[in-house]
Amino acid sequence: MKLERSPLARPFPDMPPVAGVALRVARAGYKDWGRCDLTYVELAEGTAVAGVFTRNRCCSTEVELGREQVRAGRARGLVVNAGNSNAFTGHRGRAAVEQIMGQVAAHLGCDEREVFVSSTGVIGVPLPRDKARAGVAAALEASECSWEDAAATIGTTDTFPKGALTRAVIGDTTVTLAAIIKGSGMIAPDMATMLGYVFTDAAVEPAFLQALLSAANERTFSCITVDSDTSTSDTVLAFATGQAGNAPLASFGDAGADAFAAALDDICRQLAHLVVRDGEGARKFIEVAVTGAASNDSARRIGLAIANSPLVKTAIAGEDANWGRVVMAVGKAGEPADRDRLSIGFGGHWAARDGLPLADYDEGPVAEHLRGDEVRIDVDLGLGDGRATVWTCDLTHQYIAINADYRS
Amino acid sequence: MKLERSPLARPFPDMPPVAGVALRVARAGYKDWGRCDLTYVELAEGTAVAGVFTRNRCCSTEVELGREQVRAGRARGLVVNAGNSNAFTGHRGRAAVEQIMGQVAAHLGCDEREVFVSSTGVIGVPLPRDKARAGVAAALEASECSWEDAAATIGTTDTFPKGALTRAVIGDTTVTLAAIIKGSGMIAPDMATMLGYVFTDAAVEPAFLQALLSAANERTFSCITVDSDTSTSDTVLAFATGQAGNAPLASFGDAGADAFAAALDDICRQLAHLVVRDGEGARKFIEVAVTGAASNDSARRIGLAIANSPLVKTAIAGEDANWGRVVMAVGKAGEPADRDRLSIGFGGHWAARDGLPLADYDEGPVAEHLRGDEVRIDVDLGLGDGRATVWTCDLTHQYIAINADYRS
Repeated sequence: MKLERSPLARPFPDMPPVAGVALRVARAGYKDWGRCDLTYVELAEGTAVAGVFTRNRCCSTEVELGREQVRAGRARGLVVNAGNSNAFTGHRGRAAVEQIMGQVAAHLGCDEREVFVSSTGVIGVPLPRDKARAGVAAALEASECSWEDAAATIGTTDTFPKGALTRAVIGDTTVTLAAIIKGSGMIAPDMATMLGYVFTDAAVEPAFLQALLSAANERTFSCITVDSDTSTSDTVLAFATGQAGNAPLASFGDAGADAFAAALDDICRQLAHLVVRDGEGARKFIEVAVTGAASNDSARRIGLAIANSPLVKTAIAGEDANWGRVVMAVGKAGEPADRDRLSIGFGGHWAARDGLPLADYDEGPVAEHLRGDEVRIDVDLGLGDGRATVWTCDLTHQYIAINADYRS
Repeated sequence: MKLERSPLARPFPDMPPVAGVALRVARAGYKDWGRCDLTYVELAEGTAVAGVFTRNRCCSTEVELGREQVRAGRARGLVVNAGNSNAFTGHRGRAAVEQIMGQVAAHLGCDEREVFVSSTGVIGVPLPRDKARAGVAAALEASECSWEDAAATIGTTDTFPKGALTRAVIGDTTVTLAAIIKGSGMIAPDMATMLGYVFTDAAVEPAFLQALLSAANERTFSCITVDSDTSTSDTVLAFATGQAGNAPLASFGDAGADAFAAALDDICRQLAHLVVRDGEGARKFIEVAVTGAASNDSARRIGLAIANSPLVKTAIAGEDANWGRVVMAVGKAGEPADRDRLSIGFGGHWAARDGLPLADYDEGPVAEHLRGDEVRIDVDLGLGDGRATVWTCDLTHQYIAINADYRS
């Protein structure tokens, strides 16, 4: 089926090259489609890497290997296959990944474990080794391409290419962070996410980069959901080439570490939002702001219970200020909640406070807010200082059309 | 909106009266509709009661009171309001429930705490006391009605009335169990369910009745899901009038206790299946049979992860044997699972065994099975002896239409 561009799409940002990062794409032909579907990223010697991966127990070989590889902290290459997730393919799938790692390592003269592989697409079909070999060979020889080309090539059911850019100042050096991501369905937290890649020319020690990425993940990718389904292949990798020449960051004690951490948070949040904006069938971008919870973790779990509730998501799709469904979702989260202290609102307008519907509740401004394409649900538990913000999209006919009407 | 009768509906069974149970309905007018919406059940003196209730933290006053009332173990009356759930209505909602309890208790000359009240419908609007008073008064004076009338009157978005009947032999006495239930959306386990009422003429001690009902609940209502959303008002009550004259059951040591327990399980399973058959937008009844799990509890959680997965439910709606989505759902459950021992099938035909797609997989019989309106998903974890069966329905355009296209 031809998917229309999400009405919530953002234009691709103007993204300059990042020193030490070379992008190339090729056509492996994993599916019968007339587009590039293999992305190869070459990284300068000395590039540090960190990663977060799906917590799905039936994860792909790529995720298993990636988890081991990031421990060594160094990367020289990245290959992303689109159209075949290679998940649930046993030893045949693993052999295909190892073949790609070997092929790129031989080209670069590096250790195989410095070559990262991700795959996305249908589950259960081993990645065809001949197509992979030819595709990698073509990519190794291809001219460099743009960020937008790379972002489009890693996509599958995505309706628009997704990129983000930010900068930070470390000492007297300005470093750049550029990132691309793909994902629109099978998106739920618990690690959370699709395939996302952050590239920076900053010099950052691998262990510190990992700590920063894990922390950013908790506040960004782990706070989004499209359909509560957690992919077997979710991966976010951060690569730091060190080409900017700053004094390497190794801890928060280093000058500029806070700025870099903030920039990493920012770019991860941008990426996470882009995925929600391309959520299957999405017509509205929904922010759920939870305050007054027993803890931040509790607030996040309550926010996700709301964001994952099909009844809440369909109510927003219908522009219905059905705050009763929000109450239901708060209650089902299993977290500390006191019905008589609970307040619910939309876009800054309270509908119920301290467990009671507002006597003078005026649905007018709320209805107007819900007609927009960015909706905020406000929930205050009235219990403590815990707070969290999570993001999701509405649940529409188009989600059903994408996932039921057409055979995958 | 006018809801069409579910294609999975069952005809209402032929249900005889149960000694000690008198059914009456009336029109309270909780909504602007031309139908009865208040059900009153009078129970003989000495009736034992047991109950299971929602675990939603934002539960209704009716649930809070009901939990207290079942501890005393005795019931004389039941009032069910349809069209207004009275949930999240604070002290005004509580006063309305207490008014109903007092009104019925005065009529029967019993303790107020022997009168049970349930309400279902919109959240956040206090039950109007004047309408409740007039409705109860009318019901107290009404002629007795049939099980089907009562089942229709407790319904809200239900598209067909739901009843079930079974019998058991205790000693030389045949006892009858008759039950009605309502529910079609906001259905998820964790207690689980809607409003359901089981009536029997058997004599059963309240504590034993509670133990049996709680056990049956774990295997029936807690094993169904429509949309993963847990209502604030879910309630199942079992009433035993003792009019059949059997020696009262007090433990499994009593003759006939096993037969009664089996009958209670059976009628609860019938009710649970009826709710799934009326799941909002349901076109297919789905049974998920999980074996080989680390434990029965683990099997149930894995089954529910599958049954709650929108991607699995839309795949079944699309008659797509997308077992990769089942793998994903198994993995996201967070339970012990080993990708390389996992087997997945549909209707008794394996698609993948021991972590690998079947080399000689023939999609023909699977496709035929999926075209039917009863679908079974088979999952074997290959780890242990844990097993569970859960039930759900598919996720269709009609679910979106019911919940998004029309304001509630």
